[in-house]
Amino acid sequence: MTAANEAKAILQRLGVAEAAWGGVMPTRSPIDGSSAGTLVATADLDAVVARSARAFHAWKRVPAPRRGELVRLLGEELRASKDDLARLVTLEAGKIVSEGLGEVQEMIDVCDFAVGLSRQLYGLTLPSERPGHHMRETWQPLGPVLVISAFNFPVAVWAWNASLALVCGDPVIWKPSEKTPLTALATQAVLDRALARFGDAPEGLSQVVIGGHDTGQTLAADVRIPLVSATGSTRMGRAVAQTVAARLGRSLLELGGNNAMIVAPSADLDMAVRAVAFSAVGTCGQRCTSLRRLLVHDSIADGLIERLAKAYATQPVGDPREDGVLVGPLIDEASAQGFETALRQAVEQGGEIVVGGDRVDRDGCYVRPAIVRMPAQTAVVEHETFAPILYVMTWSDFDEAVAMQNAVPQGLSSCVFTDSVREAEAFLSAWGSDCGIANVNIGPSGAEIGGAFGGEKDTGGGRESGSDAWKAYMRRQTQTVNFSSDLPLAQGVKFDV
Amino acid sequence: MTAANEAKAILQRLGVAEAAWGGVMPTRSPIDGSSAGTLVATADLDAVVARSARAFHAWKRVPAPRRGELVRLLGEELRASKDDLARLVTLEAGKIVSEGLGEVQEMIDVCDFAVGLSRQLYGLTLPSERPGHHMRETWQPLGPVLVISAFNFPVAVWAWNASLALVCGDPVIWKPSEKTPLTALATQAVLDRALARFGDAPEGLSQVVIGGHDTGQTLAADVRIPLVSATGSTRMGRAVAQTVAARLGRSLLELGGNNAMIVAPSADLDMAVRAVAFSAVGTCGQRCTSLRRLLVHDSIADGLIERLAKAYATQPVGDPREDGVLVGPLIDEASAQGFETALRQAVEQGGEIVVGGDRVDRDGCYVRPAIVRMPAQTAVVEHETFAPILYVMTWSDFDEAVAMQNAVPQGLSSCVFTDSVREAEAFLSAWGSDCGIANVNIGPSGAEIGGAFGGEKDTGGGRESGSDAWKAYMRRQTQTVNFSSDLPLAQGVKFDV
Amino acid sequence: MTAANEAKAILQRLGVAEAAWGGVMPTRSPIDGSSAGTLVATADLDAVVARSARAFHAWKRVPAPRRGELVRLLGEELRASKDDLARLVTLEAGKIVSEGLGEVQEMIDVCDFAVGLSRQLYGLTLPSERPGHHMRETWQPLGPVLVISAFNFPVAVWAWNASLALVCGDPVIWKPSEKTPLTALATQAVLDRALARFGDAPEGLSQVVIGGHDTGQTLAADVRIPLVSATGSTRMGRAVAQTVAARLGRSLLELGGNNAMIVAPSADLDMAVRAVAFSAVGTCGQRCTSLRRLLVHDSIADGLIERLAKAYATQPVGDPREDGVLVGPLIDEASAQGFETALRQAVEQGGEIVVGGDRVDRDGCYVRPAIVRMPAQTAVVEHETFAPILYVMTWSDFDEAVAMQNAVPQGLSSCVFTDSVREAEAFLSAWGSDCGIANVNIGPSGAEIGGAFGGEKDTGGGRESGSDAWKAYMRRQTQTVNFSSDLPLAQGVKFDV
Amino acid sequence: MTAANEAKAILQRLGVAEAAWGGVMPTRSPIDGSSAGTLVATADLDAVVARSARAFHAWKRVPAPRRGELVRLLGEELRASKDDLARLVTLEAGKIVSEGLGEVQEMIDVCDFAVGLSRQLYGLTLPSERPGHHMRETWQPLGPVLVISAFNFPVAVWAWNASLALVCGDPVIWKPSEKTPLTALATQAVLDRALARFGDAPEGLSQVVIGGHDTGQTLAADVRIPLVSATGSTRMGRAVAQTVAARLGRSLLELGGNNAMIVAPSADLDMAVRAVAFSAVGTCGQRCTSLRRLLVHDSIADGLIERLAKAYATQPVGDPREDGVLVGPLIDEASAQGFETALRQAVEQGGEIVVGGDRVDRDGCYVRPAIVRMPAQTAVVEHETFAPILYVMTWSDFDEAVAMQNAVPQGLSSCVFTDSVREAEAFLSAWGSDCGIANVNIGPSGAEIGGAFGGEKDTGGGRESGSDAWKAYMRRQTQTVNFSSDLPLAQGVKFDV
Repeated sequence: MTAANEAKAILQRLGVAEAAWGGVMPTRSPIDGSSAGTLVATADLDAVVARSARAFHAWKRVPAPRRGELVRLLGEELRASKDDLARLVTLEAGKIVSEGLGEVQEMIDVCDFAVGLSRQLYGLTLPSERPGHHMRETWQPLGPVLVISAFNFPVAVWAWNASLALVCGDPVIWKPSEKTPLTALATQAVLDRALARFGDAPEGLSQVVIGGHDTGQTLAADVRIPLVSATGSTRMGRAVAQTVAARLGRSLLELGGNNAMIVAPSADLDMAVRAVAFSAVGTCGQRCTSLRRLLVHDSIADGLIERLAKAYATQPVGDPREDGVLVGPLIDEASAQGFETALRQAVEQGGEIVVGGDRVDRDGCYVRPAIVRMPAQTAVVEHETFAPILYVMTWSDFDEAVAMQNAVPQGLSSCVFTDSVREAEAFLSAWGSDCGIANVNIGPSGAEIGGAFGGEKDTGGGRESGSDAWKAYMRRQTQTVNFSSDLPLAQGVKFDV
Repeated sequence: MTAANEAKAILQRLGVAEAAWGGVMPTRSPIDGSSAGTLVATADLDAVVARSARAFHAWKRVPAPRRGELVRLLGEELRASKDDLARLVTLEAGKIVSEGLGEVQEMIDVCDFAVGLSRQLYGLTLPSERPGHHMRETWQPLGPVLVISAFNFPVAVWAWNASLALVCGDPVIWKPSEKTPLTALATQAVLDRALARFGDAPEGLSQVVIGGHDTGQTLAADVRIPLVSATGSTRMGRAVAQTVAARLGRSLLELGGNNAMIVAPSADLDMAVRAVAFSAVGTCGQRCTSLRRLLVHDSIADGLIERLAKAYATQPVGDPREDGVLVGPLIDEASAQGFETALRQAVEQGGEIVVGGDRVDRDGCYVRPAIVRMPAQTAVVEHETFAPILYVMTWSDFDEAVAMQNAVPQGLSSCVFTDSVREAEAFLSAWGSDCGIANVNIGPSGAEIGGAFGGEKDTGGGRESGSDAWKAYMRRQTQTVNFSSDLPLAQGVKFDV
Repeated sequence: MTAANEAKAILQRLGVAEAAWGGVMPTRSPIDGSSAGTLVATADLDAVVARSARAFHAWKRVPAPRRGELVRLLGEELRASKDDLARLVTLEAGKIVSEGLGEVQEMIDVCDFAVGLSRQLYGLTLPSERPGHHMRETWQPLGPVLVISAFNFPVAVWAWNASLALVCGDPVIWKPSEKTPLTALATQAVLDRALARFGDAPEGLSQVVIGGHDTGQTLAADVRIPLVSATGSTRMGRAVAQTVAARLGRSLLELGGNNAMIVAPSADLDMAVRAVAFSAVGTCGQRCTSLRRLLVHDSIADGLIERLAKAYATQPVGDPREDGVLVGPLIDEASAQGFETALRQAVEQGGEIVVGGDRVDRDGCYVRPAIVRMPAQTAVVEHETFAPILYVMTWSDFDEAVAMQNAVPQGLSSCVFTDSVREAEAFLSAWGSDCGIANVNIGPSGAEIGGAFGGEKDTGGGRESGSDAWKAYMRRQTQTVNFSSDLPLAQGVKFDV
Repeated sequence: MTAANEAKAILQRLGVAEAAWGGVMPTRSPIDGSSAGTLVATADLDAVVARSARAFHAWKRVPAPRRGELVRLLGEELRASKDDLARLVTLEAGKIVSEGLGEVQEMIDVCDFAVGLSRQLYGLTLPSERPGHHMRETWQPLGPVLVISAFNFPVAVWAWNASLALVCGDPVIWKPSEKTPLTALATQAVLDRALARFGDAPEGLSQVVIGGHDTGQTLAADVRIPLVSATGSTRMGRAVAQTVAARLGRSLLELGGNNAMIVAPSADLDMAVRAVAFSAVGTCGQRCTSLRRLLVHDSIADGLIERLAKAYATQPVGDPREDGVLVGPLIDEASAQGFETALRQAVEQGGEIVVGGDRVDRDGCYVRPAIVRMPAQTAVVEHETFAPILYVMTWSDFDEAVAMQNAVPQGLSSCVFTDSVREAEAFLSAWGSDCGIANVNIGPSGAEIGGAFGGEKDTGGGRESGSDAWKAYMRRQTQTVNFSSDLPLAQGVKFDV
């Protein structure tokens, strides 16, 4: 069965009306290039935003634990539709089966987490310096949240945002990547079931908007949307950030990464090899946390590269639906060309391709993941190419390795493989990795939802999912109540009228 | 003695070299228009930033409690120079003596608070879903911080930022308002004494830059400055926000307010009158938290306005150095013209001037604070005029009063005077005030340093001073350490190479 | 059907083997006195504790989010068995149907909350004063937890403790009240289903122990049980506290309350009447948070008492299974005698019985809830009688009312009905109510699981359920890692060998 | 000059009236046995407690930031009297000069920390499940705090408690060790200066009580003292805990430690040797965190012991006032006899004394620190002997080492020396050290004030100083405000009257 036909069957099973998805069918599935329709952008964006603003008016008055109940039901429905939704991720984004399932599991996990938050969303009480005064800080619902998501995590990123936003009292408007509209529609259908069971949620609490760059920019400029949470390229993020800043809105940006692994002499090399393989070729190198730079101590570089080359050589590239396949297709032809261009530049800049780098001859855009040994971190290495290329560089001094890790514009994920406490903690210190994520003996990819996810510098500075990331979805209010009969001023100011 | 000459004497006493301040003497003191020099902008901004970046390299390695010791010494030095510095605030910004002292006290308070933080800056440890994994979130120093401050709080806002930034491991570059450079130089001199006692701080840890809008924009565009904390007009904030967004930096904005007080029938009117007087005419209406809109229940409006008119009529306007004077000058002639223009527009839009509104005939820019009764919240009311104009509107239903409070573009401070639990808590609820600050039986002005200070919407969204405002000055890192011999993936993903 | 027979049917449906419950059938159901067996105490307590200690050894190594999955499954199973379990609560404890359902809902709520905690259990990272040092505070599993629960919340209190304990990594040993063993066995059966679905939990993770005071004391003395969480009378709590203290263990005590409501002139009396009725006669006055003292402003006392007397007079007392019945039986004959004794003493001490106070002539121990007007807080008022007696006293000054509220040995729950901000906030201030729970315009009864539950003074000081109550179930460890090559000492101590 | 005479001079300089200290002069200074008076117990303990209760009534109403100002002034006064107070610690407790200074520095540090807390003492705001309800948790002042301190930290432990207690709103009653009353009186004199500068603190806010075990027990039994914070032996702690439990009060216990260091093959042995020397012989082995057990990997045991033996052999034992002396006297003759008895038992149980163990022939109680190689952790090793004896045991498997570390009744401090991430993190994991303090590459002694200090098991479970240790000094109140016109019940319970 073609990917397109299989997708259709799932959409029907999930209850997405053909009228809805018929018009947004992707031109090509990355698996086999099969297609069944064309993209039609949502026309009336103003109505979408107006509906969301109305929903906010009602939703912010619903007690947060009750809002949490909706998210709990969403988690239940996601559990019930896990296989279907995961399969659709495979079909539309080209991920292997296990990764598709993992992505839906991530949605489920973050729902459970958000349910817990619905009785927390803790502000503070704090002591006033003035007698007979009570002081507190409360977190209030913020308003409609625009979620712009990317093709490579077509549903999980929405769930990170939506589960928190809904619990925090905010409606959600979702503009998925134009490459993955079907998973968005399917997810909305799953949410609709939860909404039906919930009962009294306002209309327009969650809406999917189909469209491209212009649609995103139009929505990002809308002053009724206090928060824009955007995941994608640094170029896109820069545009969104400026648009939102012009109206003094709030942006939450998850942009590009250029993630490195430092391998020290004391590293467990068996683990390092497995970690490299998963994080460099998983999702065909199309994760924001994909491993792109391998920084190896020169005493162990040759051996490690040899082992990696062997591991790469035996990895089957092909239809991600098939058992045993770990590497599926790139998302589209432009992506494949980016892969080839980067490799050409790498060679021009002194690089030596150790393994991979060629196209695979079949329908869809399949390439063989490449390892390229580089003499230094040249221009191409500093650039994020969204494809399975791993640049390898060497070092002799640990501080130098950390400096190399930090010497790129992006700041998402980073890791070190070592058994040395001194190296590990230095890497995690104020003078260690400058990324938002720093791992020890774990690849750069695959974060848990309990931690805050995001990065610094050109990665955009946003944080999603765990820790206190929920605060981005609320507004903070410092409240002071004078219950005395006096009117003292702060800082002892005297002003007697 | 002219204000300029008195200022010179203080600068000498505080040890600011004449070479330094001679060149930046303001053209006119607002008190008497006296002057002694001209503004010379700092020339080599690149060198300033480079120095700050070098200082960061060293400062981030200093343990935070040790960094706190510098801030503790700063607090001691501020205590020692409190009278001088407060007097300089009076001379340069035109504040009355008590307010000048209050402003320095605020600097001292925030130093004490920051010292406490220097052993906190709490991140999290949290449980990993993977066996043999340790997970934590750590807050790391961020880098050079640019502080752009406004004339009306010429030193306190710097202290809010600098005390936190220094404790957090960040050097500070300060661009004060071109209207108040002397207080900045004096503050730097006080800090220099603390630095001398401290001993081994890096050169360039704190720098003052003299200049105007262009200087601010040049620095704001510098990618080596991860955080720009800017206080001032919404117009300025919008420009800074876009400049910083274009390079994916972080902004902390404290912009305009248009602060309202709701007075309910159960209010203690004696307290309300005093609160209005302080918050509407204090600092001659030039606080970002000044009271600009009075929303009174119609059953008590006439009586309250009458009492206010009486209180206004007896307030002496004059030299802020004199005992008993509560209203000093506006900062400059443009400000006085803005006052007059706004009053003219108010009348055109149906307003009736109840009291004040005229210029006072003396050197400097003195005006009589005005109360204007308005038929509705017209265009001029929605605009922040940085001068002592109080617009009065009435209401009959509490929900309507809250809606009026929220119906302006700004979102800084707000308050209600009431003894009703239902009204007070509704005002503080998710469907109450939409401002960053919400007070009950306290005017909108005069926050304590323990709370987070700042506002929503056109106010810019930043938070400074208390609560977890320090997080803006650090970067967050999610850290996971695998200390097992296995390499499990999050969300149960399987990927066996 | 007799209560006993109905209970048997439920036990069978829930899968509790007759061998298990046959031996522990209560001698008398409070509803109709029906009975079907006798209490047999668990014989080998040492084996129980040993099993728990072994389970701890395994369970503490299971990642907390995975432990949370067990509690999530427990929540699902409780939802599935909600009606049965609630009915059993009615049958065994005599609660009305709605309260039985509410109690099981509370179990479900706290499970959801605990699932969220399973990815939190936040410790801290904090900055060391020594260079090259990393500092953190981590919360670790504690060990077996003994839960001693009371008859009046036969299952919810266990759920508060067990859901947190399990997530925190601790096995649970449950000694329910000897008056309500069946609900405990039924709950264990529900948990067993969750355990079966979970898969690999260690044996003995949760155990029910049948027995009386001696069983509790034997277990409380066991050094292998680091935490004893006991709910019940102050007399029991004192004994447990001393036993545990003698071995330097940790106690979490939820003991008696003597809860008051202050009614101020501005109170909404409709609401006050309803609140009094629910909190004074609900569960037949057998909640630890039952309202026992009504402190009314003398200007409204007569009217309020009259309204209450009317409301009391029309409340049907009877079989709690019947529709419309709000007052069921007391738990046993001793309780009914306590009711009568207290009323007699009240009259002796000057009290006047306004309504109720007599026995109802039917099987089981039914009484009519009483209101007694007292001239002052005499000895009987200071004592907690676990039955539906409401003492009414009056006041004229608000401070006096607060002083009366605080003038009893217990410190669990308290409330004020008022619309005055000044009164409400004074009640909630450092010089207000001295109880662990303080409500405004809400009765003393019926806490949400998100807040910490418990009280001060003779109430024992423990806190359960929400907020950071989970910390009682873990041990805290302050961890410092030196990753430098130096060995500096704290506080700058020099010690050179 | 005799120690006694030098102490007198300091007391006079600090302003302690001779009448006050004349009566409490210790019978013998540990340095030279010099003496100048006798101990007179405080007579009227009831008056002391009554005064404290009255002070509480006033102090709890003082805003916390203002209370913090008192502690700030205390910090200033301690800085001013640092040398004198440190010297007195040396004279009365026998500590070397650097340790005396370090102890006072710790007092200063905790004052700075507590000042920061005075604007925090954070409670929570949290979302209610009921519409129109506001929920929060507030921390309120607790009441008089009894501090029972031990001779070995005669002033720092008081400062840990008092600085927090005062900021939290609690008066303090201090019963110092009967061996070190003079430092207590001197500290009170320093606080008196801060109180004089502060101005309006209530009388009796801080009181020193002279007395022994009976005095402590009488006070511990007083129901007006909600918190007893006791530092000392496990035997004392057990007695206090039971006394306080009998009245349902709160205990904070810091009792004995039996602290171990694990040395792994990858350890930096230079650092390990220095760490052992400081932590095993510092304060002549009389710290609760002194190193008592050395668990060395068998591959490196012989070499390490040899190096330690050499380091021990060259350490001069003598007058702690002299330069270069690192080992001063034991506190008294009983202590010296305990040292000898333990060594005798160790030999009987198979131990071999490697170095030290004999008395030094001079006035006062001086001994040579001992290293004893033991075949296993025999009975004497499991017992805390408060003297400089280091037992050495070996291991071959890391898990075994951790098990040895945990196999004693005490649970205060522990450490590992290793450069292995796996070992270090395992030591810090849920299945690692069971102590309250766990260090990596740091000895067990010398905690920073920012962390919580205290331990588990027979150490008593209390936590002092940093983190949220302040919560022990306050009572928590869960507050809910209904500002709606409805009266919904939690958990959806229906109860319609």
